[in-house]
Amino acid sequence: MSTDLERLSINQATTRPQWSLAEAIEGYARAGIRSIGIWPDKLAECGLAEAKRRLAANDMAVSSLSLGRVFSEGASAGSEYDRCRRALDEAAELGADCVVVLAGTQGSGPGPGPVGGLARARATVRDDFADLLSRLGPPPVPLALEPIHPMQAGELSCVNTLDQALDLCDALGNGIGIAADLYHLWWDPGLDAALARAGDRILACQVSDWLVPTVDLMAGRGMPGDGVIDLPHLMSRIAATGYRRTIEIELMSRNDWWNRRPETVVAVCAERFLQYIRPAL
Amino acid sequence: MSTDLERLSINQATTRPQWSLAEAIEGYARAGIRSIGIWPDKLAECGLAEAKRRLAANDMAVSSLSLGRVFSEGASAGSEYDRCRRALDEAAELGADCVVVLAGTQGSGPGPGPVGGLARARATVRDDFADLLSRLGPPPVPLALEPIHPMQAGELSCVNTLDQALDLCDALGNGIGIAADLYHLWWDPGLDAALARAGDRILACQVSDWLVPTVDLMAGRGMPGDGVIDLPHLMSRIAATGYRRTIEIELMSRNDWWNRRPETVVAVCAERFLQYIRPAL
Repeated sequence: MSTDLERLSINQATTRPQWSLAEAIEGYARAGIRSIGIWPDKLAECGLAEAKRRLAANDMAVSSLSLGRVFSEGASAGSEYDRCRRALDEAAELGADCVVVLAGTQGSGPGPGPVGGLARARATVRDDFADLLSRLGPPPVPLALEPIHPMQAGELSCVNTLDQALDLCDALGNGIGIAADLYHLWWDPGLDAALARAGDRILACQVSDWLVPTVDLMAGRGMPGDGVIDLPHLMSRIAATGYRRTIEIELMSRNDWWNRRPETVVAVCAERFLQYIRPAL
Repeated sequence: MSTDLERLSINQATTRPQWSLAEAIEGYARAGIRSIGIWPDKLAECGLAEAKRRLAANDMAVSSLSLGRVFSEGASAGSEYDRCRRALDEAAELGADCVVVLAGTQGSGPGPGPVGGLARARATVRDDFADLLSRLGPPPVPLALEPIHPMQAGELSCVNTLDQALDLCDALGNGIGIAADLYHLWWDPGLDAALARAGDRILACQVSDWLVPTVDLMAGRGMPGDGVIDLPHLMSRIAATGYRRTIEIELMSRNDWWNRRPETVVAVCAERFLQYIRPAL
């Protein structure tokens, strides 16, 4: 079992309401899963030393630490430095593969009136990241920039396609790569080409499925196999880039999986990984 | 008043639950608006002859007739021919500027399992449209293909960016242009360039605003000025293409405007048009 599942990671957002970090580490490990994606609030609740002990005791690796947004309204490289520094240092302590960040939609926010926020955010995000990277110095683990679905351009992130994220990486040089969450990217007519362009810059790969209908923009994701994303095809494109790390199932599901027994969620993740994801890797 | 509003049209979807076609024609005209976008179900309910009389009596033009999806699951050029033929003939009778169509997501649909639907739909949509256009012959009014927001790629349309729609138009030749609904397009980092590329192929331009948060994927749109789309900028880009037709406010709003007095909705549309849209045209 552990061999078949060795390239599966589960992001703990998948069992966010049900399990603490300690419970998730143990629950995933009991199901034969060897890797976990972690969130800073859950890590803070557990404590870094305790998290390290639990990971070691369960022989679990950390595929990512998700920092969330940087450069939201009013933020600057200076004000974001502390959060990033801490996340990078904690990620290094945990042996995480990368720290996942989103580029916030600085300057936007709800009305009234057109505010030019998205264009302004896009115009400044490269300089903001360059400033941040230069303050951080060579990061102990790489930052992975996650492009976010266009439906969240107004409230979450101004980087909305893989090509746009790659343009940013091109401009920023070393120290930053890509977190490719296929839930955000699957619709893009240029995705196959963009994945080929990304090549070895893909530092993390996350999956879930697109439900029809989708009733919640933030947390309405489906279990792999329950929606309309052609995961076997996309997995073959990910494999073709040379990607050899884990595939992280990250499934925010307010109306369904967040209300189920976490042991069931994890068992179904493993089953669907073997059915739809692993064969193409 | 009529001069200031001469380039405003309201799509009757904006007052769909409140008003019949006859009521919408009269209600919009009373507010000084000179043009309306029409839906076939509302037209059928009214009857073509009666619609023509009401339009003439109120000196109202028709900016578009929205046919909705062609090539949904199981459809073919043969099975779509009758609907399109009828819509084109009715649009010609009404003197409409264009018939708006969406390219359906044939082959997708809800799970279980990945179905390759989006890729299959995209691979076949050009041939399907070419077949349909050849059966229709030179259309009496042009078809306008509307690219649809990526958040509806799974359930509504496989054409999700303006560039993708323009590629399709390039392949299809004459008889088909673009309906640019900026609600679907505003997030696109390549939009300014795609609008310039579109040039005189833009046959209709629709607007509403992106609300933060957006709680309804299908009918959660905002009144121009209430959201985060930079309408003055986008209107200047539309004007730069040479576009001289009306701007249609099309506002599907289940939780807000659909529950208000239609006279209020129309008055606010006119006010916001003058504030955010007309100055840049």
